[in-house]
Amino acid sequence: MKVAVLSFGVSLDGFSAGPMQDLQNPLGRGGPELFEWFFNSRMWRRMHGLDGGETGIDNQMAERGFVGVGAWILGRNMFGPVRGPWPDENWKGWWGDEPPYHTPVFVLTHHPRPLLTMKGGTEFRFVTEGIEAALEQAKAAAGSGDVRIGGGVATIRQYLQARLIDEMHLALRPVFMSAGENLWHGLDMRGLGYECAEVIPGERATHVIVRRRG
Amino acid sequence: MKVAVLSFGVSLDGFSAGPMQDLQNPLGRGGPELFEWFFNSRMWRRMHGLDGGETGIDNQMAERGFVGVGAWILGRNMFGPVRGPWPDENWKGWWGDEPPYHTPVFVLTHHPRPLLTMKGGTEFRFVTEGIEAALEQAKAAAGSGDVRIGGGVATIRQYLQARLIDEMHLALRPVFMSAGENLWHGLDMRGLGYECAEVIPGERATHVIVRRRG
Repeated sequence: MKVAVLSFGVSLDGFSAGPMQDLQNPLGRGGPELFEWFFNSRMWRRMHGLDGGETGIDNQMAERGFVGVGAWILGRNMFGPVRGPWPDENWKGWWGDEPPYHTPVFVLTHHPRPLLTMKGGTEFRFVTEGIEAALEQAKAAAGSGDVRIGGGVATIRQYLQARLIDEMHLALRPVFMSAGENLWHGLDMRGLGYECAEVIPGERATHVIVRRRG
Repeated sequence: MKVAVLSFGVSLDGFSAGPMQDLQNPLGRGGPELFEWFFNSRMWRRMHGLDGGETGIDNQMAERGFVGVGAWILGRNMFGPVRGPWPDENWKGWWGDEPPYHTPVFVLTHHPRPLLTMKGGTEFRFVTEGIEAALEQAKAAAGSGDVRIGGGVATIRQYLQARLIDEMHLALRPVFMSAGENLWHGLDMRGLGYECAEVIPGERATHVIVRRRG
Protein backbone atom coordinates (compact mmCIF):
# COMPACT_ATOMS: atom_id res chain seq x y z
CA MET A 1 0.00 0.00 0.00
CA LYS A 2 1.51 3.27 -1.10
CA VAL A 3 0.84 6.97 -1.43
CA ALA A 4 1.31 7.86 -5.07
CA VAL A 5 1.04 10.64 -7.60
CA LEU A 6 0.21 9.07 -10.95
CA SER A 7 -0.06 10.25 -14.55
CA PHE A 8 0.96 13.76 -13.58
CA GLY A 9 1.98 15.91 -16.54
CA VAL A 10 5.01 18.21 -16.39
CA SER A 11 6.32 20.53 -19.10
CA LEU A 12 9.98 20.69 -20.07
CA ASP A 13 10.31 23.82 -17.98
CA GLY A 14 8.67 22.26 -14.94
CA PHE A 15 5.09 23.50 -15.07
CA SER A 16 2.16 21.23 -14.26
CA ALA A 17 -0.66 23.70 -14.77
CA GLY A 18 -1.13 26.73 -16.92
CA PRO A 19 -1.92 30.22 -15.65
CA MET A 20 -5.40 31.69 -15.25
CA GLN A 21 -7.48 28.69 -14.25
CA ASP A 22 -11.20 29.36 -14.46
CA LEU A 23 -14.45 27.70 -15.45
CA GLN A 24 -13.48 27.69 -19.14
CA ASN A 25 -9.86 26.66 -18.45
CA PRO A 26 -9.85 24.09 -15.65
CA LEU A 27 -6.21 23.24 -16.44
CA GLY A 28 -5.17 26.85 -16.94
CA ARG A 29 -4.17 28.34 -20.26
CA GLY A 30 -2.04 25.91 -22.23
CA GLY A 31 -2.68 23.26 -19.57
CA PRO A 32 -4.32 20.76 -21.96
CA GLU A 33 -0.98 20.39 -23.78
CA LEU A 34 0.28 18.57 -20.68
CA PHE A 35 -2.47 15.98 -21.10
CA GLU A 36 -2.21 15.25 -24.78
CA TRP A 37 -0.61 11.87 -24.11
CA PHE A 38 -3.64 11.00 -21.92
CA PHE A 39 -6.47 12.47 -24.00
CA ASN A 40 -5.44 10.28 -26.92
CA SER A 41 -5.27 7.06 -24.91
CA ARG A 42 -7.83 4.27 -25.00
CA MET A 43 -8.02 4.62 -21.19
CA TRP A 44 -9.18 8.21 -21.32
CA ARG A 45 -11.68 7.49 -24.07
CA ARG A 46 -13.10 4.52 -22.19
CA MET A 47 -13.46 6.68 -19.05
CA HIS A 48 -15.61 8.96 -21.15
CA GLY A 49 -17.68 6.20 -22.75
CA LEU A 50 -15.88 6.45 -26.10
CA ASP A 51 -14.45 3.72 -28.31
CA GLY A 52 -11.01 3.66 -29.84
CA GLY A 53 -7.91 5.52 -28.70
CA GLU A 54 -4.22 4.72 -28.77
CA THR A 55 -3.01 1.54 -27.08
CA GLY A 56 0.75 2.04 -26.77
CA ILE A 57 3.01 2.86 -23.84
CA ASP A 58 1.17 6.09 -22.97
CA ASN A 59 -2.06 4.14 -22.66
CA GLN A 60 -0.40 1.47 -20.50
CA MET A 61 0.89 4.16 -18.17
CA ALA A 62 -2.53 5.81 -18.01
CA GLU A 63 -4.15 2.45 -17.15
CA ARG A 64 -1.65 1.85 -14.36
CA GLY A 65 -2.86 5.05 -12.73
CA PHE A 66 -6.21 3.52 -11.85
CA VAL A 67 -5.21 0.02 -10.77
CA GLY A 68 -5.46 -0.63 -7.04
CA VAL A 69 -6.36 2.93 -6.08
CA GLY A 70 -8.54 2.83 -2.96
CA ALA A 71 -8.90 6.56 -2.30
CA TRP A 72 -7.93 9.89 -3.82
CA ILE A 73 -6.86 13.22 -2.39
CA LEU A 74 -7.47 16.44 -4.33
CA GLY A 75 -6.64 20.03 -3.59
CA ARG A 76 -9.61 22.32 -3.57
CA ASN A 77 -8.62 24.09 -6.79
CA MET A 78 -8.54 20.78 -8.55
CA PHE A 79 -12.07 20.11 -7.37
CA GLY A 80 -13.31 23.36 -8.82
CA PRO A 81 -12.95 27.06 -9.55
CA VAL A 82 -14.95 28.22 -6.49
CA ARG A 83 -12.71 30.09 -3.99
CA GLY A 84 -13.39 30.98 -0.34
CA PRO A 85 -16.43 29.71 1.60
CA TRP A 86 -18.83 27.55 -0.42
CA PRO A 87 -21.73 29.86 -1.40
CA ASP A 88 -23.98 26.81 -1.84
CA GLU A 89 -23.66 23.15 -2.73
CA ASN A 90 -24.22 23.50 -6.45
CA TRP A 91 -20.61 22.94 -7.52
CA LYS A 92 -20.06 19.18 -7.71
CA GLY A 93 -16.70 18.98 -9.45
CA TRP A 94 -15.66 19.19 -13.08
CA TRP A 95 -16.71 15.67 -13.94
CA GLY A 96 -20.51 15.54 -14.18
CA ASP A 97 -22.80 13.13 -12.31
CA GLU A 98 -20.44 10.16 -12.50
CA PRO A 99 -16.85 11.25 -11.83
CA PRO A 100 -14.01 8.93 -12.90
CA TYR A 101 -12.83 8.18 -9.34
CA HIS A 102 -15.24 5.46 -8.14
CA THR A 103 -13.71 5.68 -4.63
CA PRO A 104 -13.81 8.12 -1.73
CA VAL A 105 -12.12 11.38 -2.73
CA PHE A 106 -10.79 13.62 0.04
CA VAL A 107 -10.88 17.28 -0.93
CA LEU A 108 -8.58 19.63 1.01
CA THR A 109 -10.35 22.86 1.92
CA HIS A 110 -10.47 25.48 4.65
CA HIS A 111 -14.26 25.57 4.43
CA PRO A 112 -16.41 22.71 5.72
CA ARG A 113 -18.98 21.14 3.49
CA PRO A 114 -21.09 17.99 3.88
CA LEU A 115 -20.30 14.71 2.19
CA LEU A 116 -21.24 14.67 -1.47
CA THR A 117 -22.21 11.29 -2.93
CA MET A 118 -22.01 10.89 -6.68
CA LYS A 119 -22.94 8.13 -9.10
CA GLY A 120 -20.57 5.21 -9.60
CA GLY A 121 -19.10 5.06 -6.12
CA THR A 122 -17.37 8.45 -5.95
CA GLU A 123 -17.84 10.26 -2.64
CA PHE A 124 -16.36 13.71 -2.15
CA ARG A 125 -15.40 14.16 1.50
CA PHE A 126 -14.24 17.63 2.50
CA VAL A 127 -11.33 17.77 4.95
CA THR A 128 -10.52 20.98 6.82
CA GLU A 129 -7.86 19.62 9.20
CA GLY A 130 -4.92 19.72 6.79
CA ILE A 131 -2.91 17.36 4.63
CA GLU A 132 -1.92 14.85 7.31
CA ALA A 133 -5.47 14.39 8.52
CA ALA A 134 -6.63 13.95 4.93
CA LEU A 135 -3.98 11.32 4.32
CA GLU A 136 -4.93 9.44 7.47
CA GLN A 137 -8.57 9.40 6.46
CA ALA A 138 -7.72 8.41 2.90
CA LYS A 139 -5.55 5.53 4.08
CA ALA A 140 -8.33 4.26 6.32
CA ALA A 141 -10.83 4.50 3.47
CA ALA A 142 -8.46 2.87 0.94
CA GLY A 143 -8.16 -0.36 2.96
CA SER A 144 -5.50 -2.39 1.19
CA GLY A 145 -5.55 -0.06 -1.82
CA ASP A 146 -3.22 2.81 -2.64
CA VAL A 147 -3.89 6.45 -1.99
CA ARG A 148 -3.55 8.53 -5.13
CA ILE A 149 -2.87 12.23 -4.75
CA GLY A 150 -4.45 13.73 -7.82
CA GLY A 151 -3.12 17.29 -7.54
CA GLY A 152 -2.99 20.12 -8.14
CA VAL A 153 0.55 21.38 -7.96
CA ALA A 154 0.27 23.12 -4.58
CA THR A 155 -1.16 19.98 -2.98
CA ILE A 156 1.54 17.73 -4.38
CA ARG A 157 4.27 20.15 -3.30
CA GLN A 158 2.92 20.16 0.25
CA TYR A 159 2.88 16.36 0.41
CA LEU A 160 6.39 16.17 -1.07
CA GLN A 161 7.71 18.67 1.44
CA ALA A 162 6.24 16.54 4.21
CA ARG A 163 7.89 13.46 2.63
CA LEU A 164 4.51 11.72 2.57
CA ILE A 165 4.59 10.62 -1.07
CA ASP A 166 6.16 7.24 -1.81
CA GLU A 167 6.09 7.28 -5.59
CA MET A 168 5.34 9.59 -8.50
CA HIS A 169 4.71 8.77 -12.13
CA LEU A 170 5.37 11.94 -14.10
CA ALA A 171 4.55 12.30 -17.78
CA LEU A 172 7.12 14.72 -19.17
CA ARG A 173 5.67 16.53 -22.13
CA PRO A 174 8.01 18.15 -24.67
CA VAL A 175 6.39 21.56 -24.43
CA PHE A 176 7.26 24.86 -22.81
CA MET A 177 4.62 26.39 -20.55
CA SER A 178 6.66 29.38 -19.30
CA ALA A 179 3.94 30.34 -16.82
CA GLY A 180 1.50 28.74 -14.42
CA GLU A 181 2.33 26.50 -11.49
CA ASN A 182 5.86 25.17 -11.36
CA LEU A 183 6.23 21.77 -9.74
CA TRP A 184 9.95 22.06 -8.88
CA HIS A 185 10.69 25.68 -8.10
CA GLY A 186 12.31 25.97 -4.67
CA LEU A 187 11.65 22.31 -3.85
CA ASP A 188 14.73 20.42 -2.62
CA MET A 189 13.78 17.03 -4.07
CA ARG A 190 17.27 15.65 -3.54
CA GLY A 191 17.36 16.76 0.10
CA LEU A 192 13.87 15.32 0.65
CA GLY A 193 15.21 11.95 -0.45
CA TYR A 194 13.56 11.58 -3.85
CA GLU A 195 15.27 10.06 -6.90
CA CYS A 196 14.35 8.91 -10.38
CA ALA A 197 13.97 5.16 -10.48
CA GLU A 198 12.93 4.58 -14.08
CA VAL A 199 12.44 6.30 -17.44
CA ILE A 200 9.90 4.86 -19.91
CA PRO A 201 9.73 6.52 -23.34
CA GLY A 202 6.15 6.83 -24.54
CA GLU A 203 4.60 8.08 -27.77
CA ARG A 204 3.70 11.60 -26.63
CA ALA A 205 5.40 11.78 -23.24
CA THR A 206 8.45 10.48 -21.43
CA HIS A 207 7.32 8.68 -18.30
CA VAL A 208 9.51 9.04 -15.23
CA ILE A 209 9.06 7.11 -12.00
CA VAL A 210 10.28 8.97 -8.93
CA ARG A 211 10.61 7.23 -5.57
CA ARG A 212 11.47 8.22 -2.03
CA ARG A 213 14.52 6.36 -0.80
CA GLY A 214 13.70 3.93 1.97
CA MET B 1 24.71 27.55 -40.92
CA LYS B 2 23.14 27.76 -37.48
CA VAL B 3 23.75 28.88 -33.93
CA ALA B 4 23.30 25.85 -31.72
CA VAL B 5 23.55 24.59 -28.17
CA LEU B 6 24.43 20.91 -28.32
CA SER B 7 24.72 18.04 -25.84
CA PHE B 8 23.64 20.26 -22.99
CA GLY B 9 22.61 18.35 -19.87
CA VAL B 10 19.56 19.33 -17.83
CA SER B 11 18.23 17.69 -14.67
CA LEU B 12 14.57 16.81 -14.19
CA ASP B 13 14.19 19.95 -12.10
CA GLY B 14 15.82 22.18 -14.71
CA PHE B 15 19.38 22.58 -13.47
CA SER B 16 22.33 22.50 -15.85
CA ALA B 17 25.12 23.02 -13.34
CA GLY B 18 25.59 22.19 -9.70
CA PRO B 19 26.28 24.73 -6.96
CA MET B 20 29.77 25.70 -5.71
CA GLN B 21 31.86 25.51 -8.86
CA ASP B 22 35.57 25.62 -8.12
CA LEU B 23 38.85 24.12 -9.24
CA GLN B 24 37.92 20.70 -7.86
CA ASN B 25 34.30 20.88 -9.10
CA PRO B 26 34.30 22.46 -12.55
CA LEU B 27 30.69 21.37 -13.08
CA GLY B 28 29.60 22.29 -9.57
CA ARG B 29 28.59 19.80 -6.93
CA GLY B 30 26.52 17.00 -8.43
CA GLY B 31 27.21 18.45 -11.89
CA PRO B 32 28.89 15.30 -13.26
CA GLU B 33 25.57 13.43 -12.94
CA LEU B 34 24.31 15.57 -15.81
CA PHE B 35 27.09 14.24 -18.02
CA GLU B 36 26.87 10.53 -17.30
CA TRP B 37 25.32 9.83 -20.67
CA PHE B 38 28.33 11.57 -22.29
CA PHE B 39 31.16 10.26 -20.09
CA ASN B 40 30.19 6.70 -21.02
CA SER B 41 30.06 7.31 -24.75
CA ARG B 42 32.67 6.21 -27.28
CA MET B 43 32.81 9.85 -28.41
CA TRP B 44 33.93 11.12 -25.03
CA ARG B 45 36.45 8.35 -24.61
CA ARG B 46 37.89 8.98 -28.06
CA MET B 47 38.20 12.70 -27.25
CA HIS B 48 40.34 11.67 -24.31
CA GLY B 49 42.44 9.16 -26.22
CA LEU B 50 40.68 6.15 -24.74
CA ASP B 51 39.32 3.03 -26.43
CA GLY B 52 35.87 1.53 -25.94
CA GLY B 53 32.76 3.27 -24.70
CA GLU B 54 29.10 2.84 -25.45
CA THR B 55 27.91 3.16 -29.05
CA GLY B 56 24.14 3.59 -28.76
CA ILE B 57 21.85 6.58 -29.13
CA ASP B 58 23.62 8.65 -26.47
CA ASN B 59 26.89 8.23 -28.37
CA GLN B 60 25.26 9.20 -31.68
CA MET B 61 23.89 12.35 -30.09
CA ALA B 62 27.30 13.18 -28.60
CA GLU B 63 28.95 12.72 -32.00
CA ARG B 64 26.43 15.02 -33.67
CA GLY B 65 27.57 17.77 -31.31
CA PHE B 66 30.95 18.04 -33.04
CA VAL B 67 29.96 17.67 -36.69
CA GLY B 68 30.22 20.86 -38.73
CA VAL B 69 31.05 23.13 -35.80
CA GLY B 70 33.20 26.01 -37.07
CA ALA B 71 33.50 28.05 -33.88
CA TRP B 72 32.51 27.90 -30.23
CA ILE B 73 31.35 30.50 -27.72
CA LEU B 74 31.93 29.95 -24.00
CA GLY B 75 31.06 32.01 -20.97
CA ARG B 76 33.98 32.96 -18.85
CA ASN B 77 33.01 30.65 -15.98
CA MET B 78 32.97 27.74 -18.34
CA PHE B 79 36.50 28.62 -19.38
CA GLY B 80 37.72 28.53 -15.80
CA PRO B 81 37.30 29.32 -12.12
CA VAL B 82 39.25 32.61 -12.21
CA ARG B 83 36.98 35.60 -11.48
CA GLY B 84 37.61 39.32 -12.03
CA PRO B 85 40.64 40.67 -13.94
CA TRP B 86 43.10 38.02 -15.14
CA PRO B 87 45.96 38.03 -12.59
CA ASP B 88 48.27 36.49 -15.21
CA GLU B 89 48.02 34.24 -18.24
CA ASN B 90 48.60 30.95 -16.50
CA TRP B 91 45.01 29.69 -16.64
CA LYS B 92 44.51 28.07 -20.02
CA GLY B 93 41.18 26.33 -19.57
CA TRP B 94 40.16 23.04 -17.97
CA TRP B 95 41.25 20.91 -20.90
CA GLY B 96 45.07 20.69 -20.89
CA ASP B 97 47.38 21.52 -23.81
CA GLU B 98 45.08 20.18 -26.50
CA PRO B 99 41.46 21.15 -25.79
CA PRO B 100 38.67 19.23 -27.55
CA TYR B 101 37.46 22.21 -29.62
CA HIS B 102 39.91 22.30 -32.58
CA THR B 103 38.35 25.61 -33.74
CA PRO B 104 38.39 29.23 -32.61
CA VAL B 105 36.66 29.54 -29.22
CA PHE B 106 35.26 32.94 -28.24
CA VAL B 107 35.31 33.47 -24.49
CA LEU B 108 32.95 36.12 -23.08
CA THR B 109 34.67 38.24 -20.44
CA HIS B 110 34.72 41.78 -19.08
CA HIS B 111 38.52 41.65 -18.87
CA PRO B 112 40.70 41.78 -22.00
CA ARG B 113 43.32 39.16 -22.56
CA PRO B 114 45.47 38.33 -25.60
CA LEU B 115 44.74 35.48 -27.99
CA LEU B 116 45.72 32.10 -26.60
CA THR B 117 46.75 29.47 -29.14
CA MET B 118 46.58 25.84 -28.05
CA LYS B 119 47.58 22.57 -29.67
CA GLY B 120 45.27 20.94 -32.19
CA GLY B 121 43.77 24.09 -33.68
CA THR B 122 41.98 25.52 -30.64
CA GLU B 123 42.39 29.28 -30.24
CA PHE B 124 40.85 31.04 -27.25
CA ARG B 125 39.86 34.56 -28.25
CA PHE B 126 38.62 36.81 -25.46
CA VAL B 127 35.71 39.09 -26.31
CA THR B 128 34.82 42.04 -24.08
CA GLU B 129 32.17 43.68 -26.27
CA GLY B 130 29.24 41.46 -25.28
CA ILE B 131 27.29 38.52 -26.63
CA GLU B 132 26.30 40.00 -29.99
CA ALA B 133 29.87 40.99 -30.86
CA ALA B 134 31.07 37.54 -29.86
CA LEU B 135 28.45 35.92 -32.09
CA GLU B 136 29.40 38.12 -35.04
CA GLN B 137 33.05 37.21 -34.63
CA ALA B 138 32.25 33.54 -34.18
CA LYS B 139 30.10 33.49 -37.32
CA ALA B 140 32.89 35.11 -39.32
CA ALA B 141 35.41 32.60 -37.98
CA ALA B 142 33.10 29.62 -38.55
CA GLY B 143 32.82 30.23 -42.29
CA SER B 144 30.21 27.78 -43.52
CA GLY B 145 30.27 25.90 -40.22
CA ASP B 146 27.88 26.21 -37.28
CA VAL B 147 28.49 28.23 -34.15
CA ARG B 148 28.15 26.11 -31.01
CA ILE B 149 27.41 27.88 -27.76
CA GLY B 150 29.00 25.65 -25.18
CA GLY B 151 27.64 27.25 -22.03
CA GLY B 152 27.43 27.81 -19.18
CA VAL B 153 23.90 28.39 -18.11
CA ALA B 154 24.11 32.19 -17.80
CA THR B 155 25.57 32.47 -21.30
CA ILE B 156 22.91 30.27 -22.87
CA ARG B 157 20.14 32.16 -21.08
CA GLN B 158 21.48 35.48 -22.42
CA TYR B 159 21.55 34.15 -25.98
CA LEU B 160 18.06 32.67 -25.63
CA GLN B 161 16.67 35.92 -24.30
CA ALA B 162 18.17 37.68 -27.33
CA ARG B 163 16.57 35.01 -29.58
CA LEU B 164 19.98 34.34 -31.13
CA ILE B 165 19.93 30.55 -30.72
CA ASP B 166 18.42 28.55 -33.60
CA GLU B 167 18.53 25.07 -32.10
CA MET B 168 19.27 23.29 -28.84
CA HIS B 169 19.95 19.64 -28.19
CA LEU B 170 19.27 19.03 -24.52
CA ALA B 171 20.12 15.79 -22.76
CA LEU B 172 17.52 15.39 -20.02
CA ARG B 173 18.95 13.37 -17.19
CA PRO B 174 16.62 11.61 -14.75
CA VAL B 175 18.20 13.18 -11.67
CA PHE B 176 17.27 15.93 -9.26
CA MET B 177 19.87 18.64 -8.68
CA SER B 178 17.76 20.92 -6.42
CA ALA B 179 20.46 23.61 -6.46
CA GLY B 180 22.90 25.24 -8.84
CA GLU B 181 22.06 27.08 -12.03
CA ASN B 182 18.56 26.64 -13.36
CA LEU B 183 18.20 26.81 -17.12
CA TRP B 184 14.48 27.67 -17.23
CA HIS B 185 13.67 29.77 -14.20
CA GLY B 186 12.05 33.01 -15.26
CA LEU B 187 12.73 32.38 -18.94
CA ASP B 188 9.67 32.75 -21.19
CA MET B 189 10.69 30.13 -23.76
CA ARG B 190 7.21 30.04 -25.27
CA GLY B 191 7.09 33.82 -25.65
CA LEU B 192 10.59 33.82 -27.15
CA GLY B 193 9.29 31.49 -29.84
CA TYR B 194 10.97 28.23 -28.87
CA GLU B 195 9.33 24.82 -29.12
CA CYS B 196 10.30 21.18 -28.84
CA ALA B 197 10.73 19.65 -32.26
CA GLU B 198 11.81 16.11 -31.40
CA VAL B 199 12.30 13.68 -28.51
CA ILE B 200 14.87 10.89 -28.88
CA PRO B 201 15.06 8.36 -26.03
CA GLY B 202 18.67 7.42 -25.23
CA GLU B 203 20.22 4.94 -22.82
CA ARG B 204 21.06 7.38 -20.01
CA ALA B 205 19.31 10.54 -21.15
CA THR B 206 16.26 11.66 -23.08
CA HIS B 207 17.39 13.87 -25.93
CA VAL B 208 15.17 16.82 -26.81
CA ILE B 209 15.61 19.06 -29.83
CA VAL B 210 14.34 22.60 -29.30
CA ARG B 211 13.99 25.02 -32.21
CA ARG B 212 13.10 28.64 -32.65
CA ARG B 213 10.06 29.05 -34.85
CA GLY B 214 10.86 30.71 -38.17
